[in-house]
Amino acid sequence: MKTEILTVLRETDGYVSGQELCDRFGVSRTAVWKVINGLKEEGYAIASLPRKGYRLEGAPDIVSESELLSRLETRWLGRRVVFFEQTDSTNTQAKRLAEEGAPEGTLVVADMQTAGKGRRGRSWQQAPGTMVSMTFLLKPEFAPDRASMLTLLAAHSVAGAIEAVTGLSAAIKWPNDIVINGKKTVGILTEMSLSVEQDSIHYVVVGIGINVNIREFPEEIKDVATSLYLESGSQVNRTCLIGEVMKRFEADYEQFIALENLTGILEDYNAHLVSMNREVRVLDPKGEFQGISRGMNQNGELLVEKEDGSVVCVYAGEVSVRGLYGYV
Amino acid sequence: MKTEILTVLRETDGYVSGQELCDRFGVSRTAVWKVINGLKEEGYAIASLPRKGYRLEGAPDIVSESELLSRLETRWLGRRVVFFEQTDSTNTQAKRLAEEGAPEGTLVVADMQTAGKGRRGRSWQQAPGTMVSMTFLLKPEFAPDRASMLTLLAAHSVAGAIEAVTGLSAAIKWPNDIVINGKKTVGILTEMSLSVEQDSIHYVVVGIGINVNIREFPEEIKDVATSLYLESGSQVNRTCLIGEVMKRFEADYEQFIALENLTGILEDYNAHLVSMNREVRVLDPKGEFQGISRGMNQNGELLVEKEDGSVVCVYAGEVSVRGLYGYV
Repeated sequence: MKTEILTVLRETDGYVSGQELCDRFGVSRTAVWKVINGLKEEGYAIASLPRKGYRLEGAPDIVSESELLSRLETRWLGRRVVFFEQTDSTNTQAKRLAEEGAPEGTLVVADMQTAGKGRRGRSWQQAPGTMVSMTFLLKPEFAPDRASMLTLLAAHSVAGAIEAVTGLSAAIKWPNDIVINGKKTVGILTEMSLSVEQDSIHYVVVGIGINVNIREFPEEIKDVATSLYLESGSQVNRTCLIGEVMKRFEADYEQFIALENLTGILEDYNAHLVSMNREVRVLDPKGEFQGISRGMNQNGELLVEKEDGSVVCVYAGEVSVRGLYGYV
Repeated sequence: MKTEILTVLRETDGYVSGQELCDRFGVSRTAVWKVINGLKEEGYAIASLPRKGYRLEGAPDIVSESELLSRLETRWLGRRVVFFEQTDSTNTQAKRLAEEGAPEGTLVVADMQTAGKGRRGRSWQQAPGTMVSMTFLLKPEFAPDRASMLTLLAAHSVAGAIEAVTGLSAAIKWPNDIVINGKKTVGILTEMSLSVEQDSIHYVVVGIGINVNIREFPEEIKDVATSLYLESGSQVNRTCLIGEVMKRFEADYEQFIALENLTGILEDYNAHLVSMNREVRVLDPKGEFQGISRGMNQNGELLVEKEDGSVVCVYAGEVSVRGLYGYV
């Protein structure tokens, strides 16, 4: 009921009468009044006028199941939300839910992670309310070797969502980092469960961590990490950002399934690529080499042009981009 | 305590005095007496003589944590046992335990599965006590593309264990079925969880289902499926069989890790191969073809010699073997 009333208030520009809410959901005036009071207690600013009804004038920066569901504009992604005030890691929770049979599209969000994981297993813990920690569950029918493309899709969706919500320019560091003004702001961690004999995917979880309202970074990483707050100078509504990521990912994913490759996002992805037409150093397992990045191709590989003019498809490993002060 | 006393009784040929058990485990005579009585109630035949002590004369065909642990001769595999009288599927339970941080080697055994899975998702349910349903958890450090070799190792270990325990001849149908007298007796289902960006394995579960003491199969599958009981004419002790599988797999696995390929089991695997030097039909995704199976190679691929003398490495897909009445 809370989610439904919040959704109606959110979708209506002016006032919604109490009677209308009663009729629409088949409940009493008292029931509506209780929900409205509950919302006010959570921090929602709701104006009420006799004979006119209720109007939503402001939402608190809280992330909750109702707040999320009333913001989502997706058709299937995130239609089931599992919210934690605090949890070990949203990826771990999503995997547990998947093993228990949770449906495709299930979204796990935590206000705070106690054992969030970055790349190379680095731990990552922040104060409650300062990050977006979200993971969604997918059950794609394609072969396991294509799962890495989901990370690329997610990077694209998140970069677009950040730009739409904050107005900042977000750049993608292939394959799965997002940087703003040269500093890392987002991490993406995709995990998969599969059947070995059948070479088929059981499920994939795509985990996204965004530094949103962090006001200060520890000395040792403040030159390489930043937050949306620090770059934009203002608080960002996290639920709004999550909703935007979900909407964009749903569209990107459906297009990817239909086309069976990354053609649909390719141009826009490359327009966001940090390394585009710049010098890169590739730490290939077979040896390091340098070249000019020519962007990602439809299979998700990074094309690197070597000095002799030959183009190498890089599909894994570290790629660093030459900056003013060396490779980063 | 039960496991420890059972282990001592099992390892001792003659009688073990009650005093010896008290001293060894630092407990009272009453405590020992209670454990012995508990074991008798579970169906263990334990002789007791004044001044001589206790002797194990017979074990019931039960599968329990104590019975398993007292039988295991492994160093690390199965040193933690999780036993279920009944569960959905041991693979599912093992995956849940893995997500909760269970250690490498954890063994899950069920007396009965309600949602056991065969290949292609076929469901497979049997009366309690008639099957071995076991799954063990591994956390290998090799690349995900090598995980399919674990299925081949498991097939080898299980075939050897069946032969050692029952005296029957067990043949391997590449890659993961075991047949006795031409009928399917064992299924193996390996599942894996991995990190997509890092291309590294979180864990693998290897599930093994053995038709042990099933006395009758439904009409529609009795021509293609059999049990150890039906083929040998006698009941098989399931814990003993599980112990033998674990011992052999531990050895096969350690050898595989050391050599980094299947060389160690290759000769013996191929000696058990149903299709060896026989005509096979390969349902390759790119088209069907026939040839003569020349056995598995060190990378787990099946070598198939075509009519023109060329040899194809088959690494996935269905392979049927020509029998008296066509391909099976």
